Amino acid sequence: MRMKQTIPSSYVGLKINEWYTHIRQFHVAEAERVKLEVEREIEDMEEDQDLLLYYSLMEFRHRVMLDYIKPFGEDTSQLEFSELLEDIEGNQYKLTGLLEYYFNFFRGMYEFKQKMFVSAMMYYKRAEKNLALVSDDIEKAEFAFKMAEIFYNLKQTYVSMSYAVQALETYQMYETYTVRRIQCEFVIAGNYDDMQYPERALPHLELALDLAKKEGNPRLISSALYNLGNCYEKMGELQKAAEYFGKSVSICKSEKFDNLPHSIYSLTQVLYKQKNDAEAQKKYREGLEIARQYSDELFVELFQFLHALYGKNIDTESVSHTFQFLEEHMLYPYIEELAHDAAQFYIENGQPEKALSFYEKMVHAQKQIQRGDCLYEI
Amino acid sequence: MRMKQTIPSSYVGLKINEWYTHIRQFHVAEAERVKLEVEREIEDMEEDQDLLLYYSLMEFRHRVMLDYIKPFGEDTSQLEFSELLEDIEGNQYKLTGLLEYYFNFFRGMYEFKQKMFVSAMMYYKRAEKNLALVSDDIEKAEFAFKMAEIFYNLKQTYVSMSYAVQALETYQMYETYTVRRIQCEFVIAGNYDDMQYPERALPHLELALDLAKKEGNPRLISSALYNLGNCYEKMGELQKAAEYFGKSVSICKSEKFDNLPHSIYSLTQVLYKQKNDAEAQKKYREGLEIARQYSDELFVELFQFLHALYGKNIDTESVSHTFQFLEEHMLYPYIEELAHDAAQFYIENGQPEKALSFYEKMVHAQKQIQRGDCLYEI
Repeated sequence: MRMKQTIPSSYVGLKINEWYTHIRQFHVAEAERVKLEVEREIEDMEEDQDLLLYYSLMEFRHRVMLDYIKPFGEDTSQLEFSELLEDIEGNQYKLTGLLEYYFNFFRGMYEFKQKMFVSAMMYYKRAEKNLALVSDDIEKAEFAFKMAEIFYNLKQTYVSMSYAVQALETYQMYETYTVRRIQCEFVIAGNYDDMQYPERALPHLELALDLAKKEGNPRLISSALYNLGNCYEKMGELQKAAEYFGKSVSICKSEKFDNLPHSIYSLTQVLYKQKNDAEAQKKYREGLEIARQYSDELFVELFQFLHALYGKNIDTESVSHTFQFLEEHMLYPYIEELAHDAAQFYIENGQPEKALSFYEKMVHAQKQIQRGDCLYEI
Repeated sequence: MRMKQTIPSSYVGLKINEWYTHIRQFHVAEAERVKLEVEREIEDMEEDQDLLLYYSLMEFRHRVMLDYIKPFGEDTSQLEFSELLEDIEGNQYKLTGLLEYYFNFFRGMYEFKQKMFVSAMMYYKRAEKNLALVSDDIEKAEFAFKMAEIFYNLKQTYVSMSYAVQALETYQMYETYTVRRIQCEFVIAGNYDDMQYPERALPHLELALDLAKKEGNPRLISSALYNLGNCYEKMGELQKAAEYFGKSVSICKSEKFDNLPHSIYSLTQVLYKQKNDAEAQKKYREGLEIARQYSDELFVELFQFLHALYGKNIDTESVSHTFQFLEEHMLYPYIEELAHDAAQFYIENGQPEKALSFYEKMVHAQKQIQRGDCLYEI
């Protein structure tokens, strides 16, 4: 009987590296294929604890990729992640060097996904301590991109930009990292948007759209179109904004993306601001219906706000109801934006006292946003 | 005839280290004393180009310290710095390792002093690349403090806080770095203030005041008192704010500090907000006079604004004149603050239209501030 040949762990290690390359390129099918091969080979592999740890880390990273591509329902995804985490954390004391880097970096990505920015930053900072061990420039770019992303969310615009530029410089040198390249352009554009420079965001979003079309990636195409709509709205070019939002909506519809309510809402808002009431009313009814189908409580509320404010006759009660909802859920960025829009509306309709009360609401929301960004207590 | 003994450069090197320790502790007299000793010893020192470079770098850093303690008039200081810089930059190609770190770090400090934040950040980032060569934890704390300071100015609150905490942890372990410790507390408090958390800033400012009193440093005492006044004003405790501003003013007066106009202005502003008009009018007249003596154009304008808005009868023309001045000089943080105060004033005086126009001015200023923070063009 022929003795089964044990596979050298170094061989399996190389295969896991290959698996990780597909993950970073968002090539899901190849990643799944190589994952299965790895799992088969591990069966006949020589004993190697480190390699098994490397495998479970990569399994966890694989999960993070799938969750990005096709967000699972909260419960299933939560369960799978915690099982994977338990397995890795049980062996955490064994993690050194590069494995320790991967553990902290992937864990940070997971925390970020849960919008737990403080703990995400903690894991990223730990990973950064081992970054010197990372020789592969794509992995350095991956890390730089995730730092750019979290600093963007923390409104640390200057720092986010410097990481985004660093990541982009590497991704631009490779054909196969277009998804990351597009995401870098989105972060750069987002930072310009926060700094009230939509005109500087524009070329980055146009490039992102081109790349997304070449990539044939509907999710990224619809996001690029949506961001362009947002950009033109900020520049006061409402007609162009409406066109881009419209294109984004049609893709979200055909692909049944979860951000469909949000896209129709932004389109409806622009149509009302254009005083294109007939079209706006149509989109309002369609959008409200879809938000209800998606049981998207926030956007049901926001569609009602648009109708209450811009509809045939102002429904002040419904307007206040929306602000109450937003305050209860501490959604201060929305309060800031809608209060500013309401103030503009009441100025145009010759009601200065009403307009003033909404400016005061806006200033209060701005303060809460700043307090909300405060992650420190020393 | 006895041959003059040449002094080993290593010996002079140690003395320069001692000189640098006094500089970092802001012990001016000792720093000047050791500087003279070094200069005498260099005369009889063995040939050592690196050591001479280290000397000229430290001479430059000595200048930065003096300029902080006793800001020279623009012209003299400018001349002296450029001469020193020329000397160092002529030899820049020779700078390696730790000398290169010092060159970039000191140059960054100088650029920061000139409010040239982009170039300051560039030099600090270059210095950071050699930070691994720095073994002395005080020097690491010095670097962390300067990063905290510049990120505070760039409103990168999260990043500034993490550097400030890092620097403070080291300075707390030493008795002789109290000045830096106080400055760290100021940066932490400033970040909390920006995040609309004056109540979290308070304990840091109270500690800074204690330390400044123990240090017997009038400049730091007056700054701590001023910052406490500002903090109480933000918390709506105007009486306490007035008391602290008052104490700060009396020190600025006795010491003839250059920020006297600013301190009296903040005191006058709070007195008007307290409706303590008699006292406010007195301070307004005194402050206007002092601002003229200091030929401080900005604060002459700001005192006139206070009088025009809060004085016996509103002088709308003078109010607009001030905003025109501030707009011409692109002083958007002042525009944001004064426009908000004016809006509040007109609301209290039953003039909603006027109040609305100042809210609109405030929102425009906020946008300009965000655009002004944008140091990127990619």
